[in-house]
Amino acid sequence: MTGPNYEARRNRLLRKLKDASVDGLLVTGSSNVRYLTGFSGSSGWLFLSSSTTVILSDTRYETQLADECPGLDAEIRDAASTLDDHAARLIAKAKVKRVGIEADYVTLSQHSSLAKKIVSAEIVATSGLIERLREVKDKWEIEQTREAVRIAERGFAVVRSSLRPNQTETEIRFLLEAAMRSFGSTGPAFEPIVGVGPTSALPHAHAGGRCVSESPVLLIDWGAEVKSHYRSDLTRVLITGKPTRLMEQVYNTVLKAQQAAIEAIRPGVKCADVDKIAREIIADAGFGKNFGHGLGHGFGLEIHESVRMSPLSEQVFEVGMLVTVEPGIYLPGKFGVRIEDDLLLTPDGNEVLSNVPREFEEAIVPFLA
Amino acid sequence: MTGPNYEARRNRLLRKLKDASVDGLLVTGSSNVRYLTGFSGSSGWLFLSSSTTVILSDTRYETQLADECPGLDAEIRDAASTLDDHAARLIAKAKVKRVGIEADYVTLSQHSSLAKKIVSAEIVATSGLIERLREVKDKWEIEQTREAVRIAERGFAVVRSSLRPNQTETEIRFLLEAAMRSFGSTGPAFEPIVGVGPTSALPHAHAGGRCVSESPVLLIDWGAEVKSHYRSDLTRVLITGKPTRLMEQVYNTVLKAQQAAIEAIRPGVKCADVDKIAREIIADAGFGKNFGHGLGHGFGLEIHESVRMSPLSEQVFEVGMLVTVEPGIYLPGKFGVRIEDDLLLTPDGNEVLSNVPREFEEAIVPFLA
Repeated sequence: MTGPNYEARRNRLLRKLKDASVDGLLVTGSSNVRYLTGFSGSSGWLFLSSSTTVILSDTRYETQLADECPGLDAEIRDAASTLDDHAARLIAKAKVKRVGIEADYVTLSQHSSLAKKIVSAEIVATSGLIERLREVKDKWEIEQTREAVRIAERGFAVVRSSLRPNQTETEIRFLLEAAMRSFGSTGPAFEPIVGVGPTSALPHAHAGGRCVSESPVLLIDWGAEVKSHYRSDLTRVLITGKPTRLMEQVYNTVLKAQQAAIEAIRPGVKCADVDKIAREIIADAGFGKNFGHGLGHGFGLEIHESVRMSPLSEQVFEVGMLVTVEPGIYLPGKFGVRIEDDLLLTPDGNEVLSNVPREFEEAIVPFLA
Repeated sequence: MTGPNYEARRNRLLRKLKDASVDGLLVTGSSNVRYLTGFSGSSGWLFLSSSTTVILSDTRYETQLADECPGLDAEIRDAASTLDDHAARLIAKAKVKRVGIEADYVTLSQHSSLAKKIVSAEIVATSGLIERLREVKDKWEIEQTREAVRIAERGFAVVRSSLRPNQTETEIRFLLEAAMRSFGSTGPAFEPIVGVGPTSALPHAHAGGRCVSESPVLLIDWGAEVKSHYRSDLTRVLITGKPTRLMEQVYNTVLKAQQAAIEAIRPGVKCADVDKIAREIIADAGFGKNFGHGLGHGFGLEIHESVRMSPLSEQVFEVGMLVTVEPGIYLPGKFGVRIEDDLLLTPDGNEVLSNVPREFEEAIVPFLA
């Protein structure tokens, strides 16, 4: 499959500049630069106007730019100049009158330095221009994500089949990462969360030293990143000992909330309305106070992207969006359950990209429980 | 060994606030928050004034905060409030007149949101206040770093002893990371650079698919992170085939430059002067254009910290600083050599913390070359 059409993406962005009342944009957010050019280095800015498209970087990335962005004009700064200097010159040369800068990435220090250098144009703070384009994924991005999901699934199968009572959370984390790498991942999509018992009740726990045998509940929240930087994001709970009734009740409540949300997700529906469906099921079961985070989020080049499913969200689903659906119930000091899948918005509703067993009976690990 | 004295660090910072003409500071840079409190979560702000010290976070981190910051006042926001709201209220309650915010981390979006909420005090952009404190490490930080160096050394020994002609850069990277983990690292200090031949000529290369047998030059730039988030940063070149005279000449020039720099580093010496010593040796050998980056950098909670050794640096070495010394010569399309060690500034000069063979003869891998 051929790669993304970066020029088409940039043209879509150019058409949006008018809405933001600017005639040029300095893109400094690294995922935004990557989205518009394919450049994967740590230091690169993109300047865009109707007449000019130039990527700015330094000598460390000269060869990489030529490889990753063939055909794109590049300016390479030397040790005696800064990206600010180059950007200011380009902006003047392109005769831009109002240049946008990305308010969500530009720090006060960067702004003060840019403001000194850019004298030919008015500087305008913009927000979310490229993020909104990134909400809807193209065919190539979806293929990349499918591969990241597939690798995550295979990694989980390895972990599940090799669980031992005396295995620690950290050992499981490292095994999972190694397995995903062996299947072609360039690294985990984020630091995998592996939590036994009380640790599973912390939504953002670090894997630590608890052993599988310490509790029947083992929560794993993980994903794979592929070379193109697209990624997956899944959560499963495994039952590794004799479960209590409460565990089963909590598990089935979370699963019911997730399935109801998945059924409701389709183009045109409000993100907040789907969040509400899941939240009410959990509240009705008496666990309303134990679900403190949003129901899900967009993902792609970054693990958390626009859109967000939360009570405060004002967004509406569209075809081509990728979102996680991940309700949870957390009982502090005891255990937590979260079930998370990756969905693609389709014209008819959605497609669940991830295919890992999710029924309670299937969560029981027979050789341990 | 007992951990760091966070309160003493905060008191040192409080004494510095006058110099910045503020009577309160909102710390939002995550490494700065960690340095001053021990909190390791992804979302936490610290507000400090002579009368008030409070860490702000959200429900995800309630338990973690109690664990990591015992005795520190914490405010936990719920889904209906933002960190801005809490910060503004604390600032008003503490009767602060001029509150500093960290210009190197606060984005324009965050600033505009803070400016709306903070009405009781004047907002002042500050820069480098905590970074300057972090330049000089305490005994505990140095012990953490020694451990990170030791783990990196052991990982490298495993890689070196298991090299094979048909091994790829990526395979070496993953083996190195796994070995360091088995010795107690929580992860690599940064994505390890593993470059064979032409890839070694790219100062910031990603490990890819080149095999060891493709060139006699194999460059590895790696480090370990330990649980406390301190880290190491080393580079070695291994000779994995019959070397050319040019390879030997380049290697020995880099080594000579590094050793001369190490001899010159002591408290009171200017960073730029040491950079010059190494740079001149490389230039005298005819490779002046092939060394484009600075000679070294401070490291600690982050892999790149203040101080910097470069021609433009205005800093002076002090006892307790940790710096890398890493000259390099890069011949595009052919190969590159960089040799990097970690140094601690001592009253008499410095101590090289890393002890990996660095002579050319020692770089030759006997079972391959």
